[in-house]
Amino acid sequence: MLEFAAPEKGIEQEEGKVFRPKFDGNGLITALAMDASSGEVLMLAHMNAEALSKTIETGKAHYWSRSRNAIWLKGETSGNVQQVSEMWTDCDQDAVLMKVTVKGADASCHTGRISCFYRKIEASRDGSVNLSFDSRKAKFDPKEVYSTQEK
Amino acid sequence: MLEFAAPEKGIEQEEGKVFRPKFDGNGLITALAMDASSGEVLMLAHMNAEALSKTIETGKAHYWSRSRNAIWLKGETSGNVQQVSEMWTDCDQDAVLMKVTVKGADASCHTGRISCFYRKIEASRDGSVNLSFDSRKAKFDPKEVYSTQEK
Repeated sequence: MLEFAAPEKGIEQEEGKVFRPKFDGNGLITALAMDASSGEVLMLAHMNAEALSKTIETGKAHYWSRSRNAIWLKGETSGNVQQVSEMWTDCDQDAVLMKVTVKGADASCHTGRISCFYRKIEASRDGSVNLSFDSRKAKFDPKEVYSTQEK
Repeated sequence: MLEFAAPEKGIEQEEGKVFRPKFDGNGLITALAMDASSGEVLMLAHMNAEALSKTIETGKAHYWSRSRNAIWLKGETSGNVQQVSEMWTDCDQDAVLMKVTVKGADASCHTGRISCFYRKIEASRDGSVNLSFDSRKAKFDPKEVYSTQEK
Protein backbone atom coordinates (compact mmCIF):
# COMPACT_ATOMS: atom_id res chain seq x y z
CA MET A 1 0.00 0.00 0.00
CA LEU A 2 1.21 3.51 -0.83
CA GLU A 3 2.20 5.74 2.04
CA PHE A 4 0.71 9.19 1.60
CA ALA A 5 2.31 12.37 2.91
CA ALA A 6 0.46 14.09 5.75
CA PRO A 7 -1.63 17.15 4.88
CA GLU A 8 -0.26 20.60 5.58
CA LYS A 9 -1.99 23.95 5.84
CA GLY A 10 -2.05 26.86 3.42
CA ILE A 11 0.47 27.30 0.66
CA GLU A 12 2.17 23.90 0.98
CA GLN A 13 -1.18 22.15 0.57
CA GLU A 14 -2.46 24.38 -2.21
CA GLU A 15 0.66 25.08 -4.25
CA GLY A 16 2.85 22.09 -3.41
CA LYS A 17 3.95 19.28 -5.67
CA VAL A 18 3.46 16.51 -3.14
CA PHE A 19 0.15 14.66 -2.95
CA ARG A 20 -1.12 15.15 0.62
CA PRO A 21 -4.65 13.75 0.67
CA LYS A 22 -6.68 15.33 3.45
CA PHE A 23 -8.93 12.61 4.84
CA ASP A 24 -11.88 13.70 6.98
CA GLY A 25 -12.72 12.61 10.52
CA ASN A 26 -13.89 9.27 9.15
CA GLY A 27 -10.69 8.77 7.16
CA LEU A 28 -12.36 9.50 3.82
CA ILE A 29 -11.93 11.81 0.88
CA THR A 30 -14.51 12.53 -1.79
CA ALA A 31 -13.96 10.86 -5.15
CA LEU A 32 -15.60 11.89 -8.35
CA ALA A 33 -15.63 9.86 -11.55
CA MET A 34 -16.19 11.42 -14.94
CA ASP A 35 -16.24 9.76 -18.32
CA ALA A 36 -12.89 10.40 -20.01
CA SER A 37 -14.48 10.52 -23.41
CA SER A 38 -17.83 12.32 -22.97
CA GLY A 39 -16.89 14.38 -19.91
CA GLU A 40 -20.11 13.31 -18.18
CA VAL A 41 -20.03 13.21 -14.38
CA LEU A 42 -20.77 9.58 -13.52
CA MET A 43 -20.74 9.25 -9.74
CA LEU A 44 -19.56 10.67 -6.49
CA ALA A 45 -18.37 8.40 -3.71
CA HIS A 46 -15.66 8.13 -1.06
CA MET A 47 -12.24 6.57 -0.64
CA ASN A 48 -10.21 5.72 2.41
CA ALA A 49 -6.42 5.54 2.19
CA GLU A 50 -6.49 1.90 1.11
CA ALA A 51 -9.05 2.51 -1.66
CA LEU A 52 -7.09 5.52 -2.86
CA SER A 53 -3.86 3.56 -2.84
CA LYS A 54 -5.39 0.64 -4.72
CA THR A 55 -6.88 2.99 -7.29
CA ILE A 56 -3.50 4.58 -7.99
CA GLU A 57 -1.65 1.27 -8.00
CA THR A 58 -4.06 -0.73 -10.15
CA GLY A 59 -5.57 1.98 -12.35
CA LYS A 60 -9.03 0.70 -11.43
CA ALA A 61 -11.34 2.78 -9.23
CA HIS A 62 -11.77 1.44 -5.70
CA TYR A 63 -14.08 3.08 -3.19
CA TRP A 64 -14.99 2.77 0.46
CA SER A 65 -18.58 1.74 0.97
CA ARG A 66 -19.96 3.62 3.94
CA SER A 67 -23.04 1.39 4.01
CA ARG A 68 -21.13 -1.88 3.89
CA ASN A 69 -17.98 -0.70 5.69
CA ALA A 70 -15.81 -2.31 3.11
CA ILE A 71 -13.40 -1.61 0.29
CA TRP A 72 -15.13 -1.92 -3.01
CA LEU A 73 -13.60 -2.51 -6.43
CA LYS A 74 -16.09 -0.75 -8.65
CA GLY A 75 -17.51 -3.22 -11.15
CA GLU A 76 -16.36 -6.33 -9.29
CA THR A 77 -19.87 -7.79 -9.48
CA SER A 78 -21.39 -5.91 -12.40
CA GLY A 79 -18.36 -5.88 -14.66
CA ASN A 80 -18.59 -2.11 -14.95
CA VAL A 81 -14.99 -1.54 -13.92
CA GLN A 82 -13.78 2.05 -14.12
CA GLN A 83 -10.39 2.20 -15.81
CA VAL A 84 -8.68 5.38 -14.61
CA SER A 85 -6.71 7.40 -17.16
CA GLU A 86 -6.14 10.54 -15.07
CA MET A 87 -6.54 11.59 -11.45
CA TRP A 88 -6.62 15.18 -10.28
CA THR A 89 -6.87 16.70 -6.81
CA ASP A 90 -8.29 20.03 -5.70
CA CYS A 91 -6.79 23.03 -3.91
CA ASP A 92 -7.02 21.65 -0.37
CA GLN A 93 -6.58 18.04 -1.50
CA ASP A 94 -9.72 16.67 0.13
CA ALA A 95 -11.18 15.45 -3.16
CA VAL A 96 -10.04 13.58 -6.25
CA LEU A 97 -11.45 13.75 -9.75
CA MET A 98 -10.90 10.71 -11.95
CA LYS A 99 -11.24 10.47 -15.70
CA VAL A 100 -12.41 6.94 -16.36
CA THR A 101 -13.40 4.55 -19.11
CA VAL A 102 -16.19 2.29 -17.95
CA LYS A 103 -16.05 -1.34 -18.99
CA GLY A 104 -18.92 -3.85 -19.23
CA ALA A 105 -22.30 -2.19 -19.80
CA ASP A 106 -20.80 1.32 -19.58
CA ALA A 107 -23.00 2.09 -16.59
CA SER A 108 -21.67 3.52 -13.33
CA CYS A 109 -24.86 3.71 -11.26
CA HIS A 110 -26.08 0.67 -9.34
CA THR A 111 -29.55 1.38 -10.76
CA GLY A 112 -28.17 0.40 -14.17
CA ARG A 113 -27.83 3.92 -15.51
CA ILE A 114 -24.78 5.51 -17.13
CA SER A 115 -24.55 8.16 -14.40
CA CYS A 116 -25.93 8.46 -10.88
CA PHE A 117 -27.06 12.00 -11.78
CA TYR A 118 -30.20 11.07 -13.74
CA ARG A 119 -32.70 13.40 -12.08
CA LYS A 120 -32.94 17.16 -12.46
CA ILE A 121 -34.05 19.31 -9.55
CA GLU A 122 -36.98 21.61 -10.29
CA ALA A 123 -38.67 24.04 -7.94
CA SER A 124 -42.41 24.53 -8.24
CA ARG A 125 -44.27 27.72 -7.55
CA ASP A 126 -45.92 26.14 -4.51
CA GLY A 127 -42.51 25.76 -2.83
CA SER A 128 -42.18 22.02 -3.41
CA VAL A 129 -39.03 20.76 -5.08
CA ASN A 130 -39.37 17.91 -7.53
CA LEU A 131 -37.22 15.73 -9.73
CA SER A 132 -37.54 14.96 -13.42
CA PHE A 133 -35.77 12.00 -14.99
CA ASP A 134 -33.51 12.29 -17.98
CA SER A 135 -34.79 10.38 -20.99
CA ARG A 136 -32.12 7.70 -21.20
CA LYS A 137 -32.85 4.09 -20.41
CA ALA A 138 -30.86 1.99 -17.96
CA LYS A 139 -28.02 -0.04 -19.43
CA PHE A 140 -28.65 -3.10 -17.28
CA ASP A 141 -31.25 -4.47 -14.89
CA PRO A 142 -29.85 -4.35 -11.36
CA LYS A 143 -32.07 -7.25 -10.30
CA GLU A 144 -30.24 -9.46 -12.76
CA VAL A 145 -26.79 -8.27 -11.72
CA TYR A 146 -26.77 -7.86 -7.96
CA SER A 147 -27.77 -10.52 -5.51
CA THR A 148 -27.50 -8.24 -2.47
CA GLN A 149 -27.22 -4.54 -1.68
CA GLU A 150 -23.86 -4.61 -3.39
CA LYS A 151 -23.18 -1.81 -5.82
CA MET B 1 -36.56 29.14 2.98
CA LEU B 2 -37.67 26.02 1.11
CA GLU B 3 -38.82 23.08 3.16
CA PHE B 4 -37.27 19.90 1.86
CA ALA B 5 -38.93 16.50 2.09
CA ALA B 6 -37.26 14.02 4.44
CA PRO B 7 -35.08 11.32 2.89
CA GLU B 8 -36.47 7.82 2.50
CA LYS B 9 -34.73 4.53 1.90
CA GLY B 10 -34.50 2.41 -1.21
CA ILE B 11 -36.83 2.79 -4.16
CA GLU B 12 -38.56 5.99 -3.01
CA GLN B 13 -35.20 7.74 -2.67
CA GLU B 14 -33.71 6.36 -5.88
CA GLU B 15 -36.68 6.30 -8.24
CA GLY B 16 -38.96 8.95 -6.73
CA LYS B 17 -39.92 12.30 -8.18
CA VAL B 18 -39.63 14.25 -4.94
CA PHE B 19 -36.34 15.92 -4.01
CA ARG B 20 -35.33 14.44 -0.65
CA PRO B 21 -31.81 15.73 0.03
CA LYS B 22 -29.96 13.40 2.37
CA PHE B 23 -27.84 15.59 4.63
CA ASP B 24 -25.04 13.91 6.56
CA GLY B 25 -24.45 13.95 10.32
CA ASN B 26 -23.20 17.54 10.03
CA GLY B 27 -26.26 18.60 8.05
CA LEU B 28 -24.37 18.84 4.77
CA ILE B 29 -24.59 17.46 1.26
CA THR B 30 -21.83 17.50 -1.33
CA ALA B 31 -22.18 20.06 -4.09
CA LEU B 32 -20.31 19.96 -7.34
CA ALA B 33 -20.08 22.81 -9.82
CA MET B 34 -19.29 22.26 -13.47
CA ASP B 35 -19.02 24.81 -16.24
CA ALA B 36 -22.25 24.72 -18.24
CA SER B 37 -20.42 25.55 -21.44
CA SER B 38 -17.10 23.67 -21.30
CA GLY B 39 -18.23 20.83 -19.02
CA GLU B 40 -15.13 21.33 -16.85
CA VAL B 41 -15.47 20.36 -13.20
CA LEU B 42 -14.83 23.57 -11.28
CA MET B 43 -15.10 22.84 -7.59
CA LEU B 44 -16.48 20.56 -4.95
CA ALA B 45 -17.90 21.97 -1.72
CA HIS B 46 -20.77 21.49 0.70
CA MET B 47 -24.23 22.91 1.33
CA ASN B 48 -26.47 22.87 4.35
CA ALA B 49 -30.24 23.15 3.93
CA GLU B 50 -30.14 26.95 3.92
CA ALA B 51 -27.38 27.14 1.28
CA LEU B 52 -29.24 24.59 -0.86
CA SER B 53 -32.48 26.51 -0.49
CA LYS B 54 -30.85 29.83 -1.36
CA THR B 55 -29.15 28.28 -4.39
CA ILE B 56 -32.47 26.98 -5.74
CA GLU B 57 -34.35 30.19 -4.93
CA THR B 58 -31.82 32.70 -6.26
CA GLY B 59 -30.14 30.69 -9.04
CA LYS B 60 -26.76 31.62 -7.56
CA ALA B 61 -24.59 28.99 -5.89
CA HIS B 62 -24.41 29.26 -2.09
CA TYR B 63 -22.26 26.96 0.00
CA TRP B 64 -21.60 26.21 3.64
CA SER B 65 -18.06 27.05 4.65
CA ARG B 66 -16.87 24.39 7.08
CA SER B 67 -13.81 26.47 7.98
CA ARG B 68 -15.75 29.66 8.66
CA ASN B 69 -19.01 28.04 9.84
CA ALA B 70 -21.02 30.35 7.67
CA ILE B 71 -23.22 30.49 4.60
CA TRP B 72 -21.27 31.69 1.65
CA LEU B 73 -22.58 33.25 -1.54
CA LYS B 74 -19.91 32.14 -4.01
CA GLY B 75 -18.36 35.23 -5.59
CA GLU B 76 -19.66 37.69 -3.02
CA THR B 77 -16.15 39.09 -2.55
CA SER B 78 -14.41 38.11 -5.78
CA GLY B 79 -17.30 38.76 -8.15
CA ASN B 80 -17.00 35.21 -9.48
CA VAL B 81 -20.66 34.42 -8.91
CA GLN B 82 -21.83 31.04 -10.18
CA GLN B 83 -25.10 31.41 -12.07
CA VAL B 84 -26.85 28.04 -11.94
CA SER B 85 -28.64 26.85 -15.08
CA GLU B 86 -29.31 23.25 -14.02
CA MET B 87 -29.14 21.21 -10.83
CA TRP B 88 -29.11 17.43 -10.72
CA THR B 89 -29.07 15.00 -7.82
CA ASP B 90 -27.72 11.47 -7.61
CA CYS B 91 -29.29 8.10 -6.83
CA ASP B 92 -29.31 8.41 -3.04
CA GLN B 93 -29.70 12.20 -3.13
CA ASP B 94 -26.69 13.03 -0.97
CA ALA B 95 -25.03 15.12 -3.68
CA VAL B 96 -25.98 17.80 -6.18
CA LEU B 97 -24.33 18.61 -9.49
CA MET B 98 -24.77 22.16 -10.77
CA LYS B 99 -24.17 23.44 -14.27
CA VAL B 100 -23.00 27.00 -13.82
CA THR B 101 -21.85 30.06 -15.70
CA VAL B 102 -19.16 31.87 -13.76
CA LYS B 103 -19.26 35.66 -13.75
CA GLY B 104 -16.41 38.08 -13.07
CA ALA B 105 -13.00 36.63 -13.85
CA ASP B 106 -14.49 33.21 -14.75
CA ALA B 107 -12.47 31.62 -11.95
CA SER B 108 -13.99 29.33 -9.33
CA CYS B 109 -10.95 28.54 -7.20
CA HIS B 110 -9.90 30.91 -4.41
CA THR B 111 -6.32 30.57 -5.75
CA GLY B 112 -7.47 32.51 -8.82
CA ARG B 113 -7.69 29.51 -11.12
CA ILE B 114 -10.62 28.46 -13.32
CA SER B 115 -11.00 25.15 -11.49
CA CYS B 116 -9.87 23.85 -8.10
CA PHE B 117 -8.66 20.71 -9.89
CA TYR B 118 -5.41 22.11 -11.29
CA ARG B 119 -2.99 19.38 -10.20
CA LYS B 120 -2.68 15.90 -11.62
CA ILE B 121 -1.76 12.99 -9.38
CA GLU B 122 1.24 10.97 -10.53
CA ALA B 123 2.79 7.96 -8.87
CA SER B 124 6.55 7.54 -9.03
CA ARG B 125 8.40 4.28 -9.15
CA ASP B 126 9.82 4.92 -5.70
CA GLY B 127 6.31 4.84 -4.20
CA SER B 128 5.98 8.59 -3.72
CA VAL B 129 2.92 10.31 -5.16
CA ASN B 130 3.40 13.73 -6.67
CA LEU B 131 1.39 16.46 -8.31
CA SER B 132 1.94 18.23 -11.60
CA PHE B 133 0.26 21.53 -12.38
CA ASP B 134 -1.81 22.14 -15.48
CA SER B 135 -0.34 24.80 -17.73
CA ARG B 136 -3.02 27.45 -17.36
CA LYS B 137 -2.37 30.68 -15.53
CA ALA B 138 -4.54 32.02 -12.72
CA LYS B 139 -7.30 34.41 -13.75
CA PHE B 140 -6.82 36.72 -10.77
CA ASP B 141 -4.39 37.34 -7.93
CA PRO B 142 -6.03 36.24 -4.68
CA LYS B 143 -3.90 38.69 -2.71
CA GLU B 144 -5.58 41.53 -4.55
CA VAL B 145 -9.09 40.14 -4.12
CA TYR B 146 -9.35 38.69 -0.64
CA SER B 147 -8.54 40.52 2.54
CA THR B 148 -8.94 37.46 4.77
CA GLN B 149 -9.17 33.71 4.42
CA GLU B 150 -12.46 34.25 2.63
CA LYS B 151 -12.99 32.24 -0.52
